[in-house]
Amino acid sequence: MEFLDVGIKGSGGSLKPVIKRKKMMFELKTLTILGSTGSIGRQTLDVVHHSEGQLKVHALAADKNVKLIEEQARSVHPAVVVMMDEDAARELRERLSDTSIRVMQGMDGMINSVVAQEVDTVVTALSGRIGLEPTLSALEAGKAIALANKETLVAGGELVMAKAKAMNCPIIPVDSEHSAVFQCLEENPETLETIILTASGGPFFGWSKQELANVTLEKALRHPNWSMGAKITIDSATMMNKGLEVIEAHHLFAVDYDHIEVLIHPQSVVHSMVQYRDGSVLAQLGKADMRLPIQYALSYPTRWKNPFERLDLRGKTLAFFEPDLEGFPALALAYRAGRRGGTLPAVMNAANEVAVSAFLQNKLSYLKIYEIVERVCSEHHVLDHPELGSILDADTWARGRTLELL
Amino acid sequence: MEFLDVGIKGSGGSLKPVIKRKKMMFELKTLTILGSTGSIGRQTLDVVHHSEGQLKVHALAADKNVKLIEEQARSVHPAVVVMMDEDAARELRERLSDTSIRVMQGMDGMINSVVAQEVDTVVTALSGRIGLEPTLSALEAGKAIALANKETLVAGGELVMAKAKAMNCPIIPVDSEHSAVFQCLEENPETLETIILTASGGPFFGWSKQELANVTLEKALRHPNWSMGAKITIDSATMMNKGLEVIEAHHLFAVDYDHIEVLIHPQSVVHSMVQYRDGSVLAQLGKADMRLPIQYALSYPTRWKNPFERLDLRGKTLAFFEPDLEGFPALALAYRAGRRGGTLPAVMNAANEVAVSAFLQNKLSYLKIYEIVERVCSEHHVLDHPELGSILDADTWARGRTLELL
Repeated sequence: MEFLDVGIKGSGGSLKPVIKRKKMMFELKTLTILGSTGSIGRQTLDVVHHSEGQLKVHALAADKNVKLIEEQARSVHPAVVVMMDEDAARELRERLSDTSIRVMQGMDGMINSVVAQEVDTVVTALSGRIGLEPTLSALEAGKAIALANKETLVAGGELVMAKAKAMNCPIIPVDSEHSAVFQCLEENPETLETIILTASGGPFFGWSKQELANVTLEKALRHPNWSMGAKITIDSATMMNKGLEVIEAHHLFAVDYDHIEVLIHPQSVVHSMVQYRDGSVLAQLGKADMRLPIQYALSYPTRWKNPFERLDLRGKTLAFFEPDLEGFPALALAYRAGRRGGTLPAVMNAANEVAVSAFLQNKLSYLKIYEIVERVCSEHHVLDHPELGSILDADTWARGRTLELL
Repeated sequence: MEFLDVGIKGSGGSLKPVIKRKKMMFELKTLTILGSTGSIGRQTLDVVHHSEGQLKVHALAADKNVKLIEEQARSVHPAVVVMMDEDAARELRERLSDTSIRVMQGMDGMINSVVAQEVDTVVTALSGRIGLEPTLSALEAGKAIALANKETLVAGGELVMAKAKAMNCPIIPVDSEHSAVFQCLEENPETLETIILTASGGPFFGWSKQELANVTLEKALRHPNWSMGAKITIDSATMMNKGLEVIEAHHLFAVDYDHIEVLIHPQSVVHSMVQYRDGSVLAQLGKADMRLPIQYALSYPTRWKNPFERLDLRGKTLAFFEPDLEGFPALALAYRAGRRGGTLPAVMNAANEVAVSAFLQNKLSYLKIYEIVERVCSEHHVLDHPELGSILDADTWARGRTLELL
């Protein structure tokens, strides 16, 4: 697919990337999927299977799940498969030796797979900060981004959005909340008053401080509505996920933090809302099925028919509550980090990644996740308008400091 | 205001009238308000007062409320005021003799007031079928329509939409449900799957047949959420109002009846929804304040800031139910009349106007409204693709027949 005229504009222009194409509808789009073995990656491949030939896969990339990526490769026949892990890459090369698929390795392999000439859109479905570099490379090469890696914008939002603007590349969100906002947006950004991100509240919605002190890993992994990867599931339980989404929304839609609100909505039917300056609110609703926002990001500016189950509101009740910032202090911390800006969101994100990883290994209690992340943030000397190097330095420092504090 | 490029297109093109204007934002729009003394008319004048000079009134027209229209005229200084009633026109002419305001009378006066060269947009806030002729005249003269008179599209939908298309005139809905749909619509009409009109269910939601048999005029006039005129309040109680809206939506959005659904939503917060072919649902929410859709219709394609109270969802619960077609058979009747088409919707509407008027004068019981309307419909010999004359004939016949049956 060729973007004939693509523009993403900041607060001066349209909030929706303007994509004008002559024969948009039936043109083939070629993808590189970063993080294909993860939850979003697997569902992206399901969307590819349902796309009736409108999507083609150039490359798959993942960390080290050799078995699954081999299956995926044999199913969608990409030109390239990348494993971050060296041993995994070696093993995969052997397993795929009967095919013409090229196996590459590491960050170099990943970057190679996104800048390839054939690629139109890069799906960034990696987990954590590791998505930042390939996203920047993809933008540098003029690719459209279907963004499922919110840490990229949290850590490097300013940098990434500036690059997208300079290169005229659209960034279409895959996160269900941001996809909802994006779907509700009108072209004229002046009419926007407030973005309202909904949050299920996670498995501990309404719990007291005391109850939260006894949270186990098993309980935290049981999300009431969405089936997601382990890291984001824990982030949902602490509401750090919503905090990261607030920062993501700030960058993606060029809206200041005073005009981004969070509303608890336990049923996860309303995926987010936009309030306009006349008081009118537009909301996007749907089943809790990530294939929907994934498909939308890949079909935009049109929508493709699909056989996915439809939302049926008959007999349904939707409730809305104010978030509990005391019980879930990570949300307030993210607002503070976002407002301060500079390297602080990257540090908060890195500390959170390490702390959540320790919690997932049963090395840290639930409440300690926030305590440690908060402490690392408070110790950090913030650098304003950081370049990639400074962001990565801050990130590295935060990871090291978090490990020390565990 | 000058429409530089206005197009309303049928199923082949965009569902939203495309209005491209060079200096759209701060251009003055000049209105004729038909039905200025009614509920929508009064709220339209409130919107004019809040518009910070962006709206100007050329003419006000109403039936015979001399006292109120004199107040309105002295407040907004129109060039012309029209009274349908002859005596009222005479009285008003005396009352306004100290001003330069011209007082006109009857349907001729009304038509004069809409086709005047100064007028950009005609707000059709008349109640009942009487809105059809001035709407057609306005379209003939190339005016934009802010449509608050659903009976116009129910009785003459085919005719009116064909005229709008031929004259390249936008029809922007003012009804809260259709405004909601309009706000949720994307430009590409191919992506639309289903329109979901919400209904409060009115004051008798959940009532048994037996309970409905004892409905009094007083109870029927007590709408739970909206403050509206008497006729539409009774139509809401019987759900004929929702039936008329289904027919209105069919014409306005060129969607067949199989893809227009009605969902009971007692809180009237979600004003209607659109489901796209990928399963995604967009909804418009807001306070139950008609000034919002009125302002939107007049500000479209932009939105104006206003001081109206904002929707606050915190602590709110929104419920949705399937409509009860047995208890509220008027809704099913409207679907049947809409599907049959031709002169039948005009007949149903006329019979309903007369029957509701009789109910409002305590001359008819609540359940008899439906019985009589249904009988008049069943006796009618439907004429397909009627011209204005045939529609008015069918309307006249239906009114006479209904009066006989009272």
